[in-house]
Amino acid sequence: MRTSAAVLDLSNSPYAVVRPVPPGRVEVAEGFWHHRMRVMCTHGLHRQFEQCEVTGRLRNFERAAGRLDGEFEGRYYNDSDVYKWLEAASYALARTPSADLEARVSSVIEAIRAAQRPDGYINSYFSGPRASWRYRNPRDEHELYCMGHLIQAGVAHRRSTGSDRLFDIVVRAADHICATFGPEGRQEPDGHPGIEMALVELARETGSPAYLRQAVFFLDQRGADPPHLSGLHYHQDHAPVREQHDADGHSVRLTYLAAAMADAAMDTGEVELLQASIRLWESAYERRAYVTGGLGSRYQGEAFGADFELPNDRAYAETCAAVGGIFWNARLLAATGDARYADWLETALYNGALAGVSPDAGAYFYANPLAADPQPTPDDQGGVHSSGAQPTVGGHTRQPWYDTACCPPNIARLLLSLPGYAYGLSAGALWVHQYLPGRVEAVLPDGGSITLRIATCYPWDGDVDLVVEDAPQGPVELRLRIPSWAEGASLEVDGSCEALKPGTYAAIRRVFSTGTTVCLRLPMDVRLIASHPRVQANTGRVAIARGPLIYCIEAADHPESTVDALLLGPASDLQARDEPDLLGGLTTIRGTAGVAMQNRSDGLYSRFEGGRPRLTGSTPLTAIPYFAWANRTPGAMRVWIPYVDG
Amino acid sequence: MRTSAAVLDLSNSPYAVVRPVPPGRVEVAEGFWHHRMRVMCTHGLHRQFEQCEVTGRLRNFERAAGRLDGEFEGRYYNDSDVYKWLEAASYALARTPSADLEARVSSVIEAIRAAQRPDGYINSYFSGPRASWRYRNPRDEHELYCMGHLIQAGVAHRRSTGSDRLFDIVVRAADHICATFGPEGRQEPDGHPGIEMALVELARETGSPAYLRQAVFFLDQRGADPPHLSGLHYHQDHAPVREQHDADGHSVRLTYLAAAMADAAMDTGEVELLQASIRLWESAYERRAYVTGGLGSRYQGEAFGADFELPNDRAYAETCAAVGGIFWNARLLAATGDARYADWLETALYNGALAGVSPDAGAYFYANPLAADPQPTPDDQGGVHSSGAQPTVGGHTRQPWYDTACCPPNIARLLLSLPGYAYGLSAGALWVHQYLPGRVEAVLPDGGSITLRIATCYPWDGDVDLVVEDAPQGPVELRLRIPSWAEGASLEVDGSCEALKPGTYAAIRRVFSTGTTVCLRLPMDVRLIASHPRVQANTGRVAIARGPLIYCIEAADHPESTVDALLLGPASDLQARDEPDLLGGLTTIRGTAGVAMQNRSDGLYSRFEGGRPRLTGSTPLTAIPYFAWANRTPGAMRVWIPYVDG
Repeated sequence: MRTSAAVLDLSNSPYAVVRPVPPGRVEVAEGFWHHRMRVMCTHGLHRQFEQCEVTGRLRNFERAAGRLDGEFEGRYYNDSDVYKWLEAASYALARTPSADLEARVSSVIEAIRAAQRPDGYINSYFSGPRASWRYRNPRDEHELYCMGHLIQAGVAHRRSTGSDRLFDIVVRAADHICATFGPEGRQEPDGHPGIEMALVELARETGSPAYLRQAVFFLDQRGADPPHLSGLHYHQDHAPVREQHDADGHSVRLTYLAAAMADAAMDTGEVELLQASIRLWESAYERRAYVTGGLGSRYQGEAFGADFELPNDRAYAETCAAVGGIFWNARLLAATGDARYADWLETALYNGALAGVSPDAGAYFYANPLAADPQPTPDDQGGVHSSGAQPTVGGHTRQPWYDTACCPPNIARLLLSLPGYAYGLSAGALWVHQYLPGRVEAVLPDGGSITLRIATCYPWDGDVDLVVEDAPQGPVELRLRIPSWAEGASLEVDGSCEALKPGTYAAIRRVFSTGTTVCLRLPMDVRLIASHPRVQANTGRVAIARGPLIYCIEAADHPESTVDALLLGPASDLQARDEPDLLGGLTTIRGTAGVAMQNRSDGLYSRFEGGRPRLTGSTPLTAIPYFAWANRTPGAMRVWIPYVDG
Repeated sequence: MRTSAAVLDLSNSPYAVVRPVPPGRVEVAEGFWHHRMRVMCTHGLHRQFEQCEVTGRLRNFERAAGRLDGEFEGRYYNDSDVYKWLEAASYALARTPSADLEARVSSVIEAIRAAQRPDGYINSYFSGPRASWRYRNPRDEHELYCMGHLIQAGVAHRRSTGSDRLFDIVVRAADHICATFGPEGRQEPDGHPGIEMALVELARETGSPAYLRQAVFFLDQRGADPPHLSGLHYHQDHAPVREQHDADGHSVRLTYLAAAMADAAMDTGEVELLQASIRLWESAYERRAYVTGGLGSRYQGEAFGADFELPNDRAYAETCAAVGGIFWNARLLAATGDARYADWLETALYNGALAGVSPDAGAYFYANPLAADPQPTPDDQGGVHSSGAQPTVGGHTRQPWYDTACCPPNIARLLLSLPGYAYGLSAGALWVHQYLPGRVEAVLPDGGSITLRIATCYPWDGDVDLVVEDAPQGPVELRLRIPSWAEGASLEVDGSCEALKPGTYAAIRRVFSTGTTVCLRLPMDVRLIASHPRVQANTGRVAIARGPLIYCIEAADHPESTVDALLLGPASDLQARDEPDLLGGLTTIRGTAGVAMQNRSDGLYSRFEGGRPRLTGSTPLTAIPYFAWANRTPGAMRVWIPYVDG
């Protein structure tokens, strides 16, 4: 099974350090991700298409084209969901030909073509009776954001299928944007970034520097005096992006913005943009990220919190922010080769993002809390709703769709483009960022090619065998990522064994012969994780982890106790256990938990009676991977569990 | 010093159980509250008036009257701040005659009179060019809410001064409302309750049952099918109020609504309304209240959280919700005589509400977190602002005023009407709900009167001497509240000593003679408080308390350590110390704290290395009353402090 469509094509980006191996040269074999990609192809994408149909998202294009009567349905930014679906479907077509899917893609492209205005503008809401409202409020009405997703879809469709049908539409839209916004034209950027990454990639695809200039123009329009948007942190408009330090404001927007800064820097060489993106990353991931890779501590403003403000029950951690964080990490990794970005990419991928989709790819999370109770109070906001800043959150049950449906197609396009995130190339070196079974045929930038077959049951097992199937005459460097959690990792080639440093790339430079096997051993011991002491929410608590997976405890596995009464201690004796029949097959972690006294009769607050919780005894504990939560009987869940010493 | 204006006049409310002693019969002597009331009179009220002037709140009335040109200034619900100020100023005039204040009150009343429409309607925003917008959206535009505050001001002004100048305006406004809304008229209630309590009190003041019927009508318009408002929990519109169970949605609104339910029940005898109010109270105070009496766990929607969802750093706990909770508790106390309401009233008064105002009554809090760090991230919400649901929060520094300025005049009217909350009457009994020095002359409902002089330094000291200055011939019952925290309380009369049960009223029924002294001894030991184990935010943490006061630790007292590194343990040896020179005089609690290792080099998350925090040593700890925080150098603050056993 192959995918050919690269999300990032850095082959001509002069300042990139590690360029992704085109996914057309990556084969994904049966295993963890293969399964999820297949389900998304065969089931998820079709359910999403049907949702776009029944909610009127597709009819809106027909109406904008004048082919259908009736009022626009849904929210004014709903086109973007169709475009993201199209991007995901394009990746799918490159992997698994499907006449059915191809027909759907084709019909959507035709509807978009018909809805596009003669000057290239397209938005199905700002059409017909509302055509004159065009660009009346780029801050809130997201036409550029929508067209950004259109551009990404067009680039993906061309790279996947070789067809220019969608791409021609995209170029007209982009040219229209360049003609309208710029130093001599309209000055405002979109309130929701997205167009910037899209234009950088379009510049790469076309070779036209105008799109890159336009992207940098939009980046630099934030933080103007007087402000073009609001001057608020919410819009990342409080300071020029090159001067921003803290990951503030709307979390999805920040990830898209900072990803575009790194993106542009790889093509323009503007170190200022890269440095600012890295500063923001350090704020986001060193002080404001959940252990799952989730971002966004506040429902209000869907925003980052202060440093170390990481509530578990009210974690917003929108699926899109985890996905946007993956886009951002992938770009910083390409721009620097620093393993820390690949580490957080992996964490977000296996935890914060993957939790956003059910095993059958039929239901999604918008918010991804790290603690849940059976009956959360309603999240209805009431009053006058703002422009999409208050999504339908849907409590803590996955939903087949949302009024604001950014998350479902976002996770789809991520999953179906995943092979593009696994391998990288630099002069004389092949980088392995993520471990998944299959094959990679890498054409080295300085000539020659190397083919590896990778055999692994990662993330359930830490053994990764990389078998050289074809190698050049001269020396090649293999750079294997040693995850930061992999203390005790080792590597064996031809009988020689080497200990490895976590959080780095292990470099093996040598002449490889066909059949040589590099055996990487990543220790899969059960770990407990502590938070920095300034994370108030986690005082006295630990999280369970194994490999890249963060675990949680759920009510479904603990019928005898309430989940929030369980606590860990030195005698918990946590052990991994493979359970092929549970939730499609996974490794649980089992042990013994203490059970704290609950339901105190003395109320919400009472006199404190000593330091340790009174226990009523102990009980078997089962932890499952966080990504798998909320797929059985609804009930309480905890990632961070109290730990009592002795 | 006297106040004569009762907030609640239950003398003719047939279903009230304990009727407040009119504040005109209550004298407040020098002490904790006397000082704060005086500062509010002599300084706070004048600063608030000036804010109403400079922000155009007063000019808006002149414009509505056609006496001034120019555009309306501020927000459309700003009239309500002026009305609340007028209510507070009326209480002040009853206590301390002031020509200055009287002139200001008089000028405001004249402006209101001139702005009132001939039919009785009044709102300075919906006037002039916007007159035709009247009642276009009662859900969001709060005209009834504003007129509710006007009515409360008019009742207070009449009870304080005997004048009908404002009261006549009020009656015209109320008659207009009754003519417009009702079974035969407009159906919607206001999205923000407030008019209901006002109409009940107006019915009491006028003896006209129409206002009471109108209040009950408004109460019962929530939860209609189809909904009159939104059907959302935010508006408490998801179910009829008589069927509501959980304290959900906007917290201030819920307190005003549920207070009105209890209020109406005392006059109509509708047990359903009372029972529903009690159910909501149990949800609010037994599962969703902060230890400070603060209400509202979420910035988003300014809402209650789920059961036990009580974050400390992002506690919203709006000052107005603590104040509204006091109104609610006072009404349930009057309706039932149950000490638990007086307990929470006291807690909110000394902590959650009082923290909302600075010692000089010149600066206020909107949100009242239970943990703060020096530089919280901005709370700007961005996007399209909703109708006042997103106030100017102002970080964690008290502000002299707010764009949405509900809190400053709310705390003013509470403080200046406080004597009305201290004493109650039932057949043959005088109830002492709150302990403050001074005198009460109670006319018993069944004839006779009793005068007590109360000597106490409460809350700094737990000795309360109640000296009988005048007593009837026959037996009288004194009912003294024994706070729920007062384990070990005792009472001595004429040599006989009695142990008391916390959380009840101790009843002393006897024939009192002049000079008899009842000596109540409330133990003022330093207590540690634990939360119910389901409060995730407080796992492993305790709060320090003494008497009714909750304490906190602040950076200003701990220059050598960061506040979030301090922890308590069995050796902390906490002792109270009177400090007359600190922050106007208060009792601190001092002891020894452990200092946890901070600034771990290994980042936000790391491998867990054992159950107890590593300590770098110990340091002197100073805790101050929570109400006094944020009055010195800005810095971190914590109410809930980690406790490590051994």
